[in-house]
Amino acid sequence: VFRLKFLDLHPVDQVEVFQQMDQAQKEKFYKLMTPSELADIFEELELEEQKDVVNDWEDQEMGDVFNHMNADDVADFLGELQEDQRQGILTSMDDEDAKDVQELLTYEEETAGAIMTKEIVNLHELETVHSVLDRLRNEAPDAEMIYYLYVVDEEEKLTGVVSLRDLMVAQLDAKIGEVMSRRVVSVHVNEDQEDVAQLIKKYDFLAVPVVSTSEELLGIVTVDDVMDVLEEEATEDLAEFSATRGATDVNITAFQAAKKRSPWIILLMLFGMITAGIIGSFEETLEQVVLLSAFIPMLMGSAGNVGTQSLAIVVRGLALGNFEKKGLMRALVREFGTGLLIGLSCAIVLLLIIPIFFDDSLYLAGIVGVSLLVSLAMAAVVGSIVPLVINKFKLDPAIASGPFITTFNDIVSITIYFSIATTLLQFL
Amino acid sequence: VFRLKFLDLHPVDQVEVFQQMDQAQKEKFYKLMTPSELADIFEELELEEQKDVVNDWEDQEMGDVFNHMNADDVADFLGELQEDQRQGILTSMDDEDAKDVQELLTYEEETAGAIMTKEIVNLHELETVHSVLDRLRNEAPDAEMIYYLYVVDEEEKLTGVVSLRDLMVAQLDAKIGEVMSRRVVSVHVNEDQEDVAQLIKKYDFLAVPVVSTSEELLGIVTVDDVMDVLEEEATEDLAEFSATRGATDVNITAFQAAKKRSPWIILLMLFGMITAGIIGSFEETLEQVVLLSAFIPMLMGSAGNVGTQSLAIVVRGLALGNFEKKGLMRALVREFGTGLLIGLSCAIVLLLIIPIFFDDSLYLAGIVGVSLLVSLAMAAVVGSIVPLVINKFKLDPAIASGPFITTFNDIVSITIYFSIATTLLQFL
Ligand SMILES: [Mg+2]
Ligand SMILES: [Mg+2]
Ligand SMILES: [Mg+2]
Ligand SMILES: [Mg+2]
Ligand SMILES: [Mg+2]
Ligand SMILES: [Mg+2]
Ligand SMILES: [Mg+2]
Ligand SMILES: [Mg+2]
Ligand SMILES: [Mg+2]
Ligand SMILES: [Mg+2]
Ligand SMILES: [Mg+2]
Ligand SMILES: [Mg+2]
Ligand SMILES: [Mg+2]
Repeated sequence: VFRLKFLDLHPVDQVEVFQQMDQAQKEKFYKLMTPSELADIFEELELEEQKDVVNDWEDQEMGDVFNHMNADDVADFLGELQEDQRQGILTSMDDEDAKDVQELLTYEEETAGAIMTKEIVNLHELETVHSVLDRLRNEAPDAEMIYYLYVVDEEEKLTGVVSLRDLMVAQLDAKIGEVMSRRVVSVHVNEDQEDVAQLIKKYDFLAVPVVSTSEELLGIVTVDDVMDVLEEEATEDLAEFSATRGATDVNITAFQAAKKRSPWIILLMLFGMITAGIIGSFEETLEQVVLLSAFIPMLMGSAGNVGTQSLAIVVRGLALGNFEKKGLMRALVREFGTGLLIGLSCAIVLLLIIPIFFDDSLYLAGIVGVSLLVSLAMAAVVGSIVPLVINKFKLDPAIASGPFITTFNDIVSITIYFSIATTLLQFL
Repeated sequence: VFRLKFLDLHPVDQVEVFQQMDQAQKEKFYKLMTPSELADIFEELELEEQKDVVNDWEDQEMGDVFNHMNADDVADFLGELQEDQRQGILTSMDDEDAKDVQELLTYEEETAGAIMTKEIVNLHELETVHSVLDRLRNEAPDAEMIYYLYVVDEEEKLTGVVSLRDLMVAQLDAKIGEVMSRRVVSVHVNEDQEDVAQLIKKYDFLAVPVVSTSEELLGIVTVDDVMDVLEEEATEDLAEFSATRGATDVNITAFQAAKKRSPWIILLMLFGMITAGIIGSFEETLEQVVLLSAFIPMLMGSAGNVGTQSLAIVVRGLALGNFEKKGLMRALVREFGTGLLIGLSCAIVLLLIIPIFFDDSLYLAGIVGVSLLVSLAMAAVVGSIVPLVINKFKLDPAIASGPFITTFNDIVSITIYFSIATTLLQFL
């Protein structure tokens, strides 16, 4: 009774029920379900939960379950295990299934090869629509995606694509070669997963075929996996942006989190010591006008904010491919202009406000205002030029992480501020 | 000849060719293509280009093209036009198509209703598989998605779902009611688009049905539109994070960009003036030890970095639903612990370094070190508590934008620093 009720749930919801069970219930549960049913649940578990489950299973049991999983999901899991445990699981699986998994494990992480699925139905140009529909009836349950079908020649080279929709409206005795489209967009197996995702997004595909250098069809990447890639990349970008790479997992302990986050903070702090050195070298100026230091946080904060804005706009623009049509130089000039205009408006506001709160300090307002103007224009340029240059060298622009740009801008704006102050104070 | 060659391209690539044409070529082009072919291209253009094109067309021409577009894409475009122009286009369209568009225009932006498509094929429980397959052959070209088919009763209420895959393997004389699944996940028409996207991503669906409060089937949201939502929301989050809301478009001028960005910068600068006031009030302490100000940037920078880290982790965790299982209080305690540990490591590094570069300044190192320890723990708490509280009130946690948290942390850490310095200096 439990079994039937449970199977009536969607696998995603089954998982939620499973996660609530205690160890004894789980043991009973494993006995109750078929390997194929367990496979559906296992696929949806998180890595740590998967590891726990595998420890509960016998080798034989395990092999049966993994045989029923999609090769890409098995490869994902095995990729996270130690070499010996991985081999153990592979030998417990059927030879054919194990071969697919082993192939997937050879592709580099974050490439088309690493996220593709091998469970596909290949068509040939000389087959009739009728025979393909027949074949689908038998093979459909094993294939991950049957709505786009790819056509290959005798050498397994990709020659065309036909959608199930096209097949439905085609004459039953027509040849696949006649109804297929030869205009097929494919990706190379080593292509970056982010580019694959952008391609699927651009063309609104449900899947895209993955080919080798010799145009051989190796597998397909499906839209559901691409959605996960988009999320993963967005998380990655935000992590770079906030120097939290590797620490976004909310399930790790405070100590683990601190271990991953503190190297960045310490590194940035050491960079920050440069500003301490710069200010220290202007000690005389400071002794003349102690109040100069009151405006350090505001100046630094403003430069940091403008730089972060520019960085965000450029990184996002690059990720979405918005700069393709426009020249990068134009973008840079525009950012400089924007920074200058923002600096101008800030300076004007300051000139009106400082004299109100700090008596007899028009000269101070002048120093701060001019520094702000120059600093913000520089900050906008720094914030946009760094990711653009990194991108030119084909690296991920998000590694120009926000905190580094901000720290660099701190150094620039502090130098500008004290240089201007020292110069102007000579004339007083 | 051009026509055939052109049609051989994918619509997405056709657009790229179209964008290269000059005005005269475009005029000729409009005459050459059928309304349905123009519709495919029009759908892919960007808003500004769409507006230009519409200005080139006669009313009659325009109506024909819009009749061939998906209602959701027409609604997207019309939503951006002035009321009178919108009415003009609607009257030039067929009544039935116009009705769909008008309905879509009534739903609020960023809801399921606003992104759903109405071009679907509804099934009934008493139909046979055979008759449905026949019907699909005729209606398929008009429907946006035929791989998931939804079943409704006489009152148009959603009762089940069947995939084309299921239909293919079913007996031809079976009734839809027998082969469909009654376990159908749907979303309410007013549901936020981000929640719809997360649902589709979680279940790996290709589409999800949209229903009214009375369970009536109104349309479906497809995975391709959901990918655009994910990108849009990631851009939105990054924009909030960097205070660039509304300014991420790289095609606007420096003046327009400055107009959108400077209000945030000025507002933050005014907040920043609070730090100037605080430092000003510690003028005596500063006069005693001018070098205190040398460490302001580093202290502020570190607090800002830790706060940004915490913010990013919490915002991303909330977006991905990672906090559902864990208590929020636990997350907060963890962040406090993490901040304290990071502060401790920074303080230790500082105690070793400051005495090397600034002679005779162990007391200075002590002040800075202790301030750093306290400030970083506080910064982590501020960075995580603000988005968590905002989320409790059902608002989008990303509005706790990075710069605001950083500015707030500036105020906190400066106050801590000067208070500790003033206290400790009394004992010297
Ligand atoms: Mg994989
Ligand atoms: Mg798209
Ligand atoms: Mg997959
Ligand atoms: Mg999946
Ligand atoms: Mg990336
Ligand atoms: Mg990447
Ligand atoms: Mg559409
Ligand atoms: Mg819409
Ligand atoms: Mg759509
Ligand atoms: Mg998924
Ligand atoms: Mg689309
Ligand atoms: Mg959002
Ligand atoms: Mg939103």
